[in-house]
Amino acid sequence: MLEILRGNLVSAPRLGALDVAERGYLVLEDGVIRGVFDKLPAQYAVAPVTDYGDALILQSFADMHLHAPQYPMLGMGMDLPLLDWLNTYAFPTEAQFADPDYARVVYRALAEDLIANGTTRVCMFSSLHTEATWVLMEELERSGVTGYVGKVNMDRNGAPGSLQESTDESVRETIRWLEGCRFDRVKPILTPRFTPSCSDELMAALGRLAAERGLYVQSHLSENVREMEWVRQLHPDCRRYWETYDKFGLWKDHTVMAHCVHSDEVERRAMHRAGVAAVHCPASNVNICSGVCPVRRMLREGVWVTLGSDIAGGDQLPMYQVITAAIRASKDRHIMDNGSTEFLTVEEAYYLGTTSGHRYFGAGEGFAAGDRLHAIVVDDSNFPRSGRPLSVTERFERALYLMGAKNIVAVWSDGRCVVKKR
Amino acid sequence: MLEILRGNLVSAPRLGALDVAERGYLVLEDGVIRGVFDKLPAQYAVAPVTDYGDALILQSFADMHLHAPQYPMLGMGMDLPLLDWLNTYAFPTEAQFADPDYARVVYRALAEDLIANGTTRVCMFSSLHTEATWVLMEELERSGVTGYVGKVNMDRNGAPGSLQESTDESVRETIRWLEGCRFDRVKPILTPRFTPSCSDELMAALGRLAAERGLYVQSHLSENVREMEWVRQLHPDCRRYWETYDKFGLWKDHTVMAHCVHSDEVERRAMHRAGVAAVHCPASNVNICSGVCPVRRMLREGVWVTLGSDIAGGDQLPMYQVITAAIRASKDRHIMDNGSTEFLTVEEAYYLGTTSGHRYFGAGEGFAAGDRLHAIVVDDSNFPRSGRPLSVTERFERALYLMGAKNIVAVWSDGRCVVKKR
Repeated sequence: MLEILRGNLVSAPRLGALDVAERGYLVLEDGVIRGVFDKLPAQYAVAPVTDYGDALILQSFADMHLHAPQYPMLGMGMDLPLLDWLNTYAFPTEAQFADPDYARVVYRALAEDLIANGTTRVCMFSSLHTEATWVLMEELERSGVTGYVGKVNMDRNGAPGSLQESTDESVRETIRWLEGCRFDRVKPILTPRFTPSCSDELMAALGRLAAERGLYVQSHLSENVREMEWVRQLHPDCRRYWETYDKFGLWKDHTVMAHCVHSDEVERRAMHRAGVAAVHCPASNVNICSGVCPVRRMLREGVWVTLGSDIAGGDQLPMYQVITAAIRASKDRHIMDNGSTEFLTVEEAYYLGTTSGHRYFGAGEGFAAGDRLHAIVVDDSNFPRSGRPLSVTERFERALYLMGAKNIVAVWSDGRCVVKKR
Repeated sequence: MLEILRGNLVSAPRLGALDVAERGYLVLEDGVIRGVFDKLPAQYAVAPVTDYGDALILQSFADMHLHAPQYPMLGMGMDLPLLDWLNTYAFPTEAQFADPDYARVVYRALAEDLIANGTTRVCMFSSLHTEATWVLMEELERSGVTGYVGKVNMDRNGAPGSLQESTDESVRETIRWLEGCRFDRVKPILTPRFTPSCSDELMAALGRLAAERGLYVQSHLSENVREMEWVRQLHPDCRRYWETYDKFGLWKDHTVMAHCVHSDEVERRAMHRAGVAAVHCPASNVNICSGVCPVRRMLREGVWVTLGSDIAGGDQLPMYQVITAAIRASKDRHIMDNGSTEFLTVEEAYYLGTTSGHRYFGAGEGFAAGDRLHAIVVDDSNFPRSGRPLSVTERFERALYLMGAKNIVAVWSDGRCVVKKR
C-alpha cells in the first residue's frame, strides 16, 4: 500500500550534512521508504496523503546504551563515582527485578516513555533476570520500540545473594533466555556487564555462544580511570581494556561498547579495525564524573560513534536531550583542549543520535529508500514566537533544544505509525 | 488572615543544608511566613488548611540573570563565541523590540513561562527600548513575577541604526524610563550592557544616577577571554575588568555581575569586599564556549554566588534545569581540576538557585519567618515508580532533575498564590 507523508522533512545523510525538504513528500510503500521529494512525482498523485502541515518530520532516535532496570532511580543518587555508584545505587535497584510483576509495571512505563519521546531503536541492558528480561522485550515490542536487549551476565563482584550468578547459572540462564526469545522486532544481544563482573570462564562461554549463534555483543569500555586500573589488575596480560573482550571472541563486528571515555589511540584503532560501535553517553559521563569523551578525535579517526542516554547514570531518557548534551560535552572538551578540537555542530550531533545508530540495525543514511520508516513528527507551534520567519533548519535546531514529549505528535517505527495524536 | 499549607516542605537555610518537614505545616499570615512546623502548634488549630497531600513544597526560584528580548531566539544560534554571537544573533533579535506591540506578545509569553516554571523573582535585562521595557515590567507584574528589570544602556559597539543610542539619548531615556516606572512588585535597576557597550561619559552618568537615586546596578563581568582583552584595550588604566565599573561608581553593594567565569582571585576579592552578587550562568557558559566557572573556589572565598538562566545564551528558562546545569558544570570543573575541587551537591545548587538569590531582594534563609512566601508545589506522582519508598530528600533530588512545568501545581509569589491547578 502506498501512502505519503507531507511536512518539513529533515534528515542526516552524513556526519554534518542535513537533507531538508520544505513541505516535502515522503513516499512509503507498505512502511518502506520509496523516496523523499520536494515535488510529488506524478506516479504517486493518487496515493493518500497524511499532511502534517507546518510540522517538522525528523528521523526518530536510536538509544544505543541504557539500563532498563535503572529507570526507577532516574534523577537520583549521582553523588558518587562509577564503582561506588554501582554498589550503592545501581545494584540494589536492579536486584528488585527478580520480581517479574514489578518488572512489568516498570518496563511498561519505560517503553511508553521511550516511544513518546521518539526513541524507536535501542540497544539495551536488562538485569541478570531471565523472566524480567522477557517482560522487557515484550513491553518494548508492545509499545513499538525495536532493537536489541541483553540479559546481563555477572558472576563476580556483583551483590552476592541479590545480584550475582554462579558461572554455570549465568551460562545456563543465558541459553534458556535465548531460547525463549520469540519476538518480532526485539532481538537478543549477549551482555557481559563489564570485565570486572565476569570471570574468564564466563567470558569464554559467552564468546563461544556469540560465535555459534551469530549473536552481537554489548558491554562497557574504559568509562572511568579507577575501573580501568581494576581491569588491569584482573587481566595483567592485557595492556588495554579492549583486549579483555578480544581474548574471548567478544570484540568483533557490531560489538557495542559504551562510554570509551578514556580509550587511547590504540584502543580506538582497535574499535575502528573491528567495526565496533562506540556509544557516547554525555550525560552519564558528567553525572558520575567519568570524564569528557574526546568525540571529535574519535570521529576524525574514523571510529563509529553513536549516542546513548545511559539511564540512570544519565538523568534524561529523551534522546533529543542526549543530542544537546553531546553538543555541550563537545564544547566542554573544546574548552579543556583550549579550542584545539572543534565542538559538534547541531547537524553532527543529530547524525550521531539518529543515522549513526540506525545503521547498527542495517538502515541506510537519513530517510534512505528501501528502509522501513523510523520518524517523528514535531509540532513546534508552542515555542517562543520569533519576530521573523525561521528557516526549517533554525526550527530544527530549536526543536532539539526545546522539545518535549508533548511536541511529538506522531511516531513511526519500523514502518508503522505507533503514536498518532492527530 | 491566617492560612496553613501542608505538604513535604524542603528549603535551604544555608549552603549545603536542607530543612525538611515531612507532611509539615507552613503557617502564613497575610502572605507572610509565621513558621514551618512538623506538628501544628495549638494556636493555629482553627486556621484553614490547604493540604497538598504527598506533594513537595519547595522554595520558588530566583533567576538573577536573563535577557528578556532574547526569548524569541531560545534554543538557536549557539555556534559562535560571545562577541560574534552578540552581533550575529542577539543584537538583531533585540532590535525588534522597538515595536511595543511585538514586545507585548513576547513578554506576555515569557512572563507566563517564568511563573509556570516556578521563577518568582528575577533580575532581568530588557533591551534599550523604553516603551518595551515598561511593557516587560507590566507583563511580569501581571503574571506574578517580581524583582528588578533594567532598560539596557549601550551607546557604542552595538548595531548603529538599529540597536544603539547616542550618549545623550541613553541618559535621557533612562531618566524618562525611571520616572515612568510605577509598578508594585517590579522595580528598575540600572543596566549598562557591559563595558564595551558604554562610553565613559555614559558610565559616569549612570554612576551619578545610581548614587542620587539609590539604584542598584547590573551588568556583565569577565565572561569570555576575548571580551576581557577588549576591555583591557578600552580601559588601559584598569588592570582588571571590575575596575571599569568601579571607576564610575557602579561597583557597590548589591551590584549584580553576570558570569565572572574568568575573574581571578583579586577580582573575586573585590566582589566579596563590595557585596557584589555574582551570577553563575552554567548553561550559557558552555553553549557559547565561555568557559567553566570555578564556583567552588568562589564559594570558598566567600563570594555571593547566585544562578541565572541567561537566556538566550542559556537554552533553558526553567531554573530547576539551571540548578542541575550548575551541578554538571561543577562536575566538569571537578574533572578539569583532576578532582581537586569538589562538585556542587544537589542541596548546594538548590541553595544557589533559591535562598542565595532571594537574599538579594531582602529575604531571609529558606522559609524564614517574616518573609512573604515564595514557593512552588510539585506533584511528582508521574515520575518512574521506585521499588522502595523514597525519602523526601530523594524525591527532592529527583524533582530537580525530572520536573517540568506540568509538575508545578501551585506557585506562591510575594505571599500570593499566583498559579493554582488544584
